[in-house]
Amino acid sequence: MRPLTRADRAQLAMILEVSAYPKPGNVDRCHDYETTRLEHFLASAILARPALEAAERSEGGPGALIHQAVECTSGHRGGNTHFGAFILLIPLLMGGDIPGATRVVGSTTVDDAVEFYRAFGKTEVRVIQGHELDVHDPSSIMEIRSRGMTLYDLMLFSAPRDMVAREWINGFEMTRRGADLIHAAGSGQQAVVEAFLGLLSLEPDTFVIKKHGPDVASKTMEKAREVREGLRDLQAFDQECIDKKINPGSIADIIIAALYIALGEGWEWD
Amino acid sequence: MRPLTRADRAQLAMILEVSAYPKPGNVDRCHDYETTRLEHFLASAILARPALEAAERSEGGPGALIHQAVECTSGHRGGNTHFGAFILLIPLLMGGDIPGATRVVGSTTVDDAVEFYRAFGKTEVRVIQGHELDVHDPSSIMEIRSRGMTLYDLMLFSAPRDMVAREWINGFEMTRRGADLIHAAGSGQQAVVEAFLGLLSLEPDTFVIKKHGPDVASKTMEKAREVREGLRDLQAFDQECIDKKINPGSIADIIIAALYIALGEGWEWD
Repeated sequence: MRPLTRADRAQLAMILEVSAYPKPGNVDRCHDYETTRLEHFLASAILARPALEAAERSEGGPGALIHQAVECTSGHRGGNTHFGAFILLIPLLMGGDIPGATRVVGSTTVDDAVEFYRAFGKTEVRVIQGHELDVHDPSSIMEIRSRGMTLYDLMLFSAPRDMVAREWINGFEMTRRGADLIHAAGSGQQAVVEAFLGLLSLEPDTFVIKKHGPDVASKTMEKAREVREGLRDLQAFDQECIDKKINPGSIADIIIAALYIALGEGWEWD
Repeated sequence: MRPLTRADRAQLAMILEVSAYPKPGNVDRCHDYETTRLEHFLASAILARPALEAAERSEGGPGALIHQAVECTSGHRGGNTHFGAFILLIPLLMGGDIPGATRVVGSTTVDDAVEFYRAFGKTEVRVIQGHELDVHDPSSIMEIRSRGMTLYDLMLFSAPRDMVAREWINGFEMTRRGADLIHAAGSGQQAVVEAFLGLLSLEPDTFVIKKHGPDVASKTMEKAREVREGLRDLQAFDQECIDKKINPGSIADIIIAALYIALGEGWEWD
């Protein structure tokens, strides 16, 4: 077999994440949401290819490449599928690994921030009212320019409230933990589920906070911990999350980045 | 969104086929076989990319490109996933559509036949004993050369016993029918299931014949017909096929080719 490129690893990470089952509350092999289904995530993984390849060759800055990835994958009706994942994958593809990605995010520019905001405006990503620059307001981009904010600055600004942004600031800490959990669980899809539960039990999921508030996110984290300790049934927890539409999408984004890293370190998916 | 390339369409066709549910007897969103699982098919769709792109640019002959596709996708433990699909997709990618593919298959060479046999030897595809040149016997390739057989000649030789080979000879007739069934069923994944049942009810599946004999294949065809006529329950038929390990893999290959065509003709997958 040909050796895997970084873009291959990123695409494999995306399909392995979404097809792993059961991932409490999220779209997986056995569960769709009404408007976002398994095949939207699978198609998104395929359609992202040109942006992932461009990132592997460092053709453009991280902001423009995230924008390109969003544009490549916005042609379906499934809404936002991989925006958070691209925020992590693009610097990882550019830098190769976590140390490389840390260098990439540390040298972003104001243009990266502007491109990122343009990409953001094309997604349906939830924002916490009043907390962030309004991506649908053209004056936000003028403000970014006048304040001289880089994309790293934007992530620093969002980090206290957003676990994906936090990865940029803290050296991809949860990504690293996720990859370690994957390695520890051994080869095959079950490792994805175990790593997902592991991260879910560590920190409240940002997407769940934005959608349901911090209490629900904290309770979900505690329940994930109970599943890991054998005190709660995984299938029942999954069903409860689905019934309440609690979908920990930020953890899923980080698991994709973790799979990218683990695959690069020799983890065997089958 | 960027316009879909032919390689995109081929990859989308592969992921839409395997994730459609329920497809009686085959790996799908809800069923694995012990050694071949959903993620093997998904990974195979991603890893085939360089060969699909090369075919889109007609870089090499159909035999070498099928060989390349097999090599790209043989790195997992799931056994043969898309060999039959590549036999159809490669000329379709080279020629663009069915008339183009018909021209491509009509002008294959002895070298194409040799490359194809080399690819065949790297798969675990079933052959009917005594009927075909033994792909594991080096003298087969010498015989192809001494007889001056092209890849088209090989397909002509196999056509009476192999519905995928038959597509090369009869102008991709089942592929065309499959695409028409997809269009008729409307947009979305359910169309894949309906087209699968439609083709399954038309002709006995070659893979089922090789594995279980012609009687089982004919009965499977009749049962598919009964499902279409509302006389048999689809879920029960699916379960029966799975229990008996009756997996109509050749129909699945043709459905992938049909999806490639339908996508090119504007069929909407979501």
